[in-house]
Amino acid sequence: MKTRRIHRAAATPSVHRIVEDIIGCKWSLAVLAQVRAGVLRPGALEQAIPGISAKVLNERLKKLTRYGILERTSYAEIPPRVEYRLSAFGAQLGAILDQITALELQRTRQ
Amino acid sequence: MKTRRIHRAAATPSVHRIVEDIIGCKWSLAVLAQVRAGVLRPGALEQAIPGISAKVLNERLKKLTRYGILERTSYAEIPPRVEYRLSAFGAQLGAILDQITALELQRTRQ
Repeated sequence: MKTRRIHRAAATPSVHRIVEDIIGCKWSLAVLAQVRAGVLRPGALEQAIPGISAKVLNERLKKLTRYGILERTSYAEIPPRVEYRLSAFGAQLGAILDQITALELQRTRQ
Repeated sequence: MKTRRIHRAAATPSVHRIVEDIIGCKWSLAVLAQVRAGVLRPGALEQAIPGISAKVLNERLKKLTRYGILERTSYAEIPPRVEYRLSAFGAQLGAILDQITALELQRTRQ
């Protein structure tokens, strides 16, 4: 039974501020890339991102959820199960980040 | 007679680094918006951007040129004339910044 979904706090920073923060943070980008690729649980995320600690992963998941990029769903099971999914806003932001990466590739080829 | 065009230094930062820098800087965004709107000369830019000093304007023009976003052309005239134009890369980056602004507007309406 799906029980709780944490929504983003009212005082979410501006999208400009979010991009400024995310684009310069390799761990945020790595977590976002993995969730976009379908890796939804913290344990699996920690396995999928070489070098990330549980502490840093947890901080980034909290931040991405607070920004409204990810949605957290916890299931009242034994043991409790938590999953993170991309929100609609997260999907739009991801598409913009993809364009920045594409522009990067294009520029390095010039 | 168009004489000189300053190209960006070889060691240009990554696009991610450029976006991280530009997106959080109101003066860079303001200068970029005005050049995109066709205001090409430093004097006119200073007039068009309320509150910007000549010093800050000059710093931002140098940075945006170093990043390869703007191209500087100087004309050997009396008095010397200098103009800044958006490069192809600058146009692509501008389009991405527009999407971030659109996402911002969309989010504030929700």
